[in-house]
Amino acid sequence: MVKIAIMGYGTVGSGVYDIIKADNFAYEAMNPIEIKYILDIRDFPDHKEKEIFTKDFNVILNDDEIYCVVEAMGGLNPAYEFTKSLLLAGKNVVTSNKELVATHGPELLRIAKDKNVNYLFEASVGGGIPIIKPLCSSLKANKIKKIAGILNGTTNFILTEMVEEGKSFSDALKMAQVNGYAERNPAADIEGHDACRKIAILASLAWGEYIDYKDIPTDGITNITLEDVDAASKLGYSVKLIGYADKRDGLFIWVSPMLVRKSCPLSGVNGVFNAILVDGNYLGTSMFYGQGAGKFATASAMVADVIESVRHINAKKAYIEWQVTEKSSVLPVSESENRYFVRTKEKQDRIEELFGKVSVSSINSENVFVTDVMKEKDFEDKAKTLGVISKIRVLDA
Amino acid sequence: MVKIAIMGYGTVGSGVYDIIKADNFAYEAMNPIEIKYILDIRDFPDHKEKEIFTKDFNVILNDDEIYCVVEAMGGLNPAYEFTKSLLLAGKNVVTSNKELVATHGPELLRIAKDKNVNYLFEASVGGGIPIIKPLCSSLKANKIKKIAGILNGTTNFILTEMVEEGKSFSDALKMAQVNGYAERNPAADIEGHDACRKIAILASLAWGEYIDYKDIPTDGITNITLEDVDAASKLGYSVKLIGYADKRDGLFIWVSPMLVRKSCPLSGVNGVFNAILVDGNYLGTSMFYGQGAGKFATASAMVADVIESVRHINAKKAYIEWQVTEKSSVLPVSESENRYFVRTKEKQDRIEELFGKVSVSSINSENVFVTDVMKEKDFEDKAKTLGVISKIRVLDA
Repeated sequence: MVKIAIMGYGTVGSGVYDIIKADNFAYEAMNPIEIKYILDIRDFPDHKEKEIFTKDFNVILNDDEIYCVVEAMGGLNPAYEFTKSLLLAGKNVVTSNKELVATHGPELLRIAKDKNVNYLFEASVGGGIPIIKPLCSSLKANKIKKIAGILNGTTNFILTEMVEEGKSFSDALKMAQVNGYAERNPAADIEGHDACRKIAILASLAWGEYIDYKDIPTDGITNITLEDVDAASKLGYSVKLIGYADKRDGLFIWVSPMLVRKSCPLSGVNGVFNAILVDGNYLGTSMFYGQGAGKFATASAMVADVIESVRHINAKKAYIEWQVTEKSSVLPVSESENRYFVRTKEKQDRIEELFGKVSVSSINSENVFVTDVMKEKDFEDKAKTLGVISKIRVLDA
Repeated sequence: MVKIAIMGYGTVGSGVYDIIKADNFAYEAMNPIEIKYILDIRDFPDHKEKEIFTKDFNVILNDDEIYCVVEAMGGLNPAYEFTKSLLLAGKNVVTSNKELVATHGPELLRIAKDKNVNYLFEASVGGGIPIIKPLCSSLKANKIKKIAGILNGTTNFILTEMVEEGKSFSDALKMAQVNGYAERNPAADIEGHDACRKIAILASLAWGEYIDYKDIPTDGITNITLEDVDAASKLGYSVKLIGYADKRDGLFIWVSPMLVRKSCPLSGVNGVFNAILVDGNYLGTSMFYGQGAGKFATASAMVADVIESVRHINAKKAYIEWQVTEKSSVLPVSESENRYFVRTKEKQDRIEELFGKVSVSSINSENVFVTDVMKEKDFEDKAKTLGVISKIRVLDA
């Protein structure tokens, strides 16, 4: 019998409770799992196990029987202080807290390594989609060249509604709110901050170097119009909010809307689904697809992490290290080379004067084209003089 | 320093050699990996490490320094005898040999468990795509409900050529042979035997019970015509060769061409790519996509398994068990319930008489329709009386 605690009895935390109550995973974990405490500041007087609830974190911290703690509180504080104390006390911690991992990952991972415990966070990116584990084990023989992910279900739902139902951005956002996919204050999703934490975690894992999410240029989808998705579609592309990272001499990394060619498997990822495309030097392109959020999808990933930790109960733990460099290796986006989708009212002659021979389509009395590959700063210089209605990076995959 | 051996220096075996020579994975495996022997019956007099080649299996078997052996020989014999001897001698074995795993998996896995060593076979299904590991760890909290996979790149290439280039089956097959995707004798691929071994392995893993591939009804794509893919496409479907397994009271499992709705992510999997859709009770639908074959894709999955095994060098190994039941739990396909795509010359009246109100499309002077969900034996009884040009199961996903 291995005893664990759950911190935070919200949507995800109660999902973890429900899953473990339905099956103690004695076979999978090679040891039955029992929930000894649930920490929450709220009262649950009608809960059938109300006696296991506590408001005192120290009860969990100081109980030597507690082997693993599921942190489903979210937010930075007190999740950070609690997690740090638990790891220092030699307890394993499993989390879905992308904010905490993206902010304090290097320190928490170092403590976990020193104490020979796990700090596991599969559920922090892509909900229930296995992506952290594959990056850390199955793809271990590969050098990762590129990651491009649809990492936020809310924005993908909105963009899908715009493409498939012809809804405006604001109508699609309302629809997402009505369906419970978007918060009343949707800024974290639609401005790209959620995807930014997630691509920071994936890039840190892929290259073993901590990427501070504050160094990642982040654009959301608030400027994407129905005219954009319509013109893109006519050229054979979908518009997706992409968390992008590309390692060469340094790292190009950003969150922004990008055009995805319809033959790319990311293009067909619709609604609240997420998908992460990973390009490895040996494997080539692979993709991981599934539900990026939701109570049980996310909770099942956390339970899998608990099982993983319990399975290796007496073993040396596999650890992850994120080196913190003095100078960020993130290169300025202006130095990146991409193709760009452009909508303009200007004539073909003027377009070709600036961008050379490109295929120009006339759509809704505008001229629409995709440039050749060029440096972003050169593109921006030329775009400034053109009178551009909109411009979106194109994903080369 | 951990010493390993490679058995079989063909395409995949030499890929493993090249990858480990380029990087000994000291960091990833927490211990540098060195190749001490290569077993092959052929001579490689010009190889830069010709001194490590041997033709004598016993050299490897009897060397206590050898911790892990990569079996890249293929075929049942002598791979079976060699693998069994190595496991019994307490050595870890990594393989891409789907034939061997599908045939002798239960025995070899039991020996591995008894000896506390790994028998790992990520590369046996989906080449470099992480699917075995996710099924065994990341998805561990889920009960798997359904697996549907495009498991053979050759047949998927042929079907893609038929759909996208309008090629006949035989022209598409020739094209696959010219490109090196199909063998001169393509039976194992086009008749579905390769996919059959792979779905047997996935089903055995998902439900912990050995599924004998000989119990799996297997149809290939040799009867699929251009008219089928064309009519299917007009109804909004792609035709794919699917390895299918669906657990209810018993197990429905087969390999056959199936119609996949274009909104299903499997539908966009084209060319030699593979993808496996997994439906879990908590996670919902997830999909794993990538190159299902190829020297370095496959070899990189084997190297990841070697790393995994080395990483847990002194630990209790996680094991897999496939229980062998006296009576196969595979249910007769005739009892399965599906929708069916039908092409016929008969009139709408006659169709509705048999199948009730269905939407009938007139395509190339035939009537084409998809039935409601019905038991396969009932469908077959009715189809017999209709005069059917072709009939294909529809994937409900």
